[in-house]
Amino acid sequence: MTGNTSDKPLIVGLAGFGTVGGGLARLVVENADMIRRRVGREILIKRVLVRDMDKARNVALPDGAQLTTDAAALADDPEIDVLVELIGGIKQARALIERALDHGKHVVTANKALLAEEGPALFVRAERAGRILRYEAGVAGAIPIVQTLKESLTGNHVLSLMGILNGTSNYILSEMAANGMDFDVALQQAQELGYAEADPTLDIDGHDAAHKLILLIRLAYGAHYPYKTLSVRGIRGLTCKDINFAKEFGYTIKLIAQVREIRESAQSREGGIPCLEAGVFPALVRNSYLLASVGGVFNAVRIEADAAGLLFFHGRGAGDLPTAGAVLADLLAVARDERPNNTGFQGEDLPLAVIVPPEEWRSCCYARLTVQDRPGVLRDIAGCMAADGVSVASMLQKSDDGRGLVPLVFMTHQTTAGAMDHALRRMADAGLLKEPAVCYRVL
Amino acid sequence: MTGNTSDKPLIVGLAGFGTVGGGLARLVVENADMIRRRVGREILIKRVLVRDMDKARNVALPDGAQLTTDAAALADDPEIDVLVELIGGIKQARALIERALDHGKHVVTANKALLAEEGPALFVRAERAGRILRYEAGVAGAIPIVQTLKESLTGNHVLSLMGILNGTSNYILSEMAANGMDFDVALQQAQELGYAEADPTLDIDGHDAAHKLILLIRLAYGAHYPYKTLSVRGIRGLTCKDINFAKEFGYTIKLIAQVREIRESAQSREGGIPCLEAGVFPALVRNSYLLASVGGVFNAVRIEADAAGLLFFHGRGAGDLPTAGAVLADLLAVARDERPNNTGFQGEDLPLAVIVPPEEWRSCCYARLTVQDRPGVLRDIAGCMAADGVSVASMLQKSDDGRGLVPLVFMTHQTTAGAMDHALRRMADAGLLKEPAVCYRVL
Repeated sequence: MTGNTSDKPLIVGLAGFGTVGGGLARLVVENADMIRRRVGREILIKRVLVRDMDKARNVALPDGAQLTTDAAALADDPEIDVLVELIGGIKQARALIERALDHGKHVVTANKALLAEEGPALFVRAERAGRILRYEAGVAGAIPIVQTLKESLTGNHVLSLMGILNGTSNYILSEMAANGMDFDVALQQAQELGYAEADPTLDIDGHDAAHKLILLIRLAYGAHYPYKTLSVRGIRGLTCKDINFAKEFGYTIKLIAQVREIRESAQSREGGIPCLEAGVFPALVRNSYLLASVGGVFNAVRIEADAAGLLFFHGRGAGDLPTAGAVLADLLAVARDERPNNTGFQGEDLPLAVIVPPEEWRSCCYARLTVQDRPGVLRDIAGCMAADGVSVASMLQKSDDGRGLVPLVFMTHQTTAGAMDHALRRMADAGLLKEPAVCYRVL
Repeated sequence: MTGNTSDKPLIVGLAGFGTVGGGLARLVVENADMIRRRVGREILIKRVLVRDMDKARNVALPDGAQLTTDAAALADDPEIDVLVELIGGIKQARALIERALDHGKHVVTANKALLAEEGPALFVRAERAGRILRYEAGVAGAIPIVQTLKESLTGNHVLSLMGILNGTSNYILSEMAANGMDFDVALQQAQELGYAEADPTLDIDGHDAAHKLILLIRLAYGAHYPYKTLSVRGIRGLTCKDINFAKEFGYTIKLIAQVREIRESAQSREGGIPCLEAGVFPALVRNSYLLASVGGVFNAVRIEADAAGLLFFHGRGAGDLPTAGAVLADLLAVARDERPNNTGFQGEDLPLAVIVPPEEWRSCCYARLTVQDRPGVLRDIAGCMAADGVSVASMLQKSDDGRGLVPLVFMTHQTTAGAMDHALRRMADAGLLKEPAVCYRVL
């Protein structure tokens, strides 16, 4: 290898020895041959930070590694070249990463929550320290989407990105679609199989996907989209009814993390600051898209870029080995002594994105209304839509469900979310809706 | 950006101003904002090497660029930082790249044929010169497969890789499958639409896919698989008959470039040298694979790796902008003054792969036999298979085609290519086959 790459071992301080930490310890031993062939050095895990020294563990500690409960033992140890942060959470992880950077260590992390919510300050700190801060394992597991956006699609403008970034929710939606399961049953099955946590909120309510989307937005656009302002809606309460109606229209419901650049906006492109529409929401994905066929716990990303055209990536988004493999790839980059390229953009700070307010988002919409089965209702519903300029593309009406109520299911033409909301509110105010309307974006 | 990245422009010598060269000239101007935001420098094309100074061109020359027919004007110009080689072919391109490296320039190329057939010497030369030699544009266009294998899957052992790497042949197969077109008609349509050359040999006979596979093998395994020894079979002569029978069995026929590591072999892993089975051939791909649904001129790669699990990539494999975007990503890496990592492995030389002879390849097989419609034929055919240990998984017999002949279509269980060939030869020697047998690997 050209240059001054050391052949002394790369010494790692590993914070966290759970699923991914254990996977990393395995890989570093089992794939030691590949590591040596690629970078001419060994990777040695010297210290492992845990909360409980006595806890029984599935994976053997690496040879020679010392367990510790003292974070400073990792961050301050001058022999340690790189901190691998896998403890997750915000406060302790941030303190540990800051301390490690301040002590001249590189950092590899999987912590999407920390980087999404408090990333900018960490990237500035890493930049000033001249250190690597890598995070491939933070988004979409084994899919190299961070590297792709940071170093392969660099000559492109990304026109849109749509991702299935949370395996738990995708698994639930797949089971509901394939087996007609109700949401609660599918969630319970996911928990039993270990695909969902005891408290599944982060996954089900879209926050995990939201964290990951923030990171992808920064990589694709070089702009900071504050996590707190991101519009996030999860899959809680989704019903088989809607999954089946979507199917009749030729669509599959997926939890989608999406960002699009709006180029026609008057604000766009001032000093290169992108004008972005972004959010996490359940959406109807047309069955002709590869995205619609992503099953189980897999993740996928669909990108439309101005030079590359359409790109699609599909792979395991979680799990010990897929995620650990991404961490290991980042460690090998550190071992190769690469120049830091942490954000993919020049400069310490990324500008704030110009944010398109959710009510201005244009798309087709799916709406399922539950109305009284009597004359004039359809006229009134259609009238509410027309009043807000919402144009109907197609419609289904099913028979009375036995309670004197019928479902009216609409697919609209392109409209704004604001107009759609307004039309639905009109209907509700007019007493036309016997249950809350269900409305999803159509992609 | 950390480090000493210059902010002076990156000066490019562009060899070739055809489809991809023209695309690059456009992108460097149209996406100049993105280039600056990412690397803090401009990219300036100073000289453009062409064969004919007077030829009318679709794309405007970049401002300030000088056309020349003198290769040395690029290679020897001390102001030029990097040569972009897009002229293709072997002899002239190699001479130009060698001269550029000798004059201390980095090189970005799309030349899969040159790198496949004569790559090792060029990588040694680049290594000794301490220069970057990048080639993302050489394989699968906009899909960042070179970068993925070289820098993202680095901690993995690649168990298998299957690619649809040639858009021309995939377009033809898609049209035959979708519209029942004959091969010759589909080829002609491809030529009319510009998806196939006047002389389509390179694409149709699998040589283009073979060049690309050699590059991917080096990146995945760090081993040299000599191009001349690669088993290559194209799609010439493929019929709708077989496409339709494959469909009945639940498969789609694709031109596949495949490599698999055979780990159980006694020779495997000696000194880390991989034992590889590799080739280009039409194959039946099961419809449950995303690979089966790759349509038109798109490319795709399906990888199975020991940590990452299954990965799938899909995108445009050719075209001015997709390919130019890949070239531009490589130029941005040069602009960032990255450390050379040309092969993804340590050391000047890559070891020779241990090659599994084609007759030892194990897979299921599809075979279509044309036999006389008379008693005893099925017994005799089955007898030939049994004699070579070939076990039948499923079978179709269609009625007499009007010439007293019937098609017998078999799907076998796992068998070696050698056993299958032998069984078919037995049948031919026994006078049982009224037309040559058609046989494809099943993936």
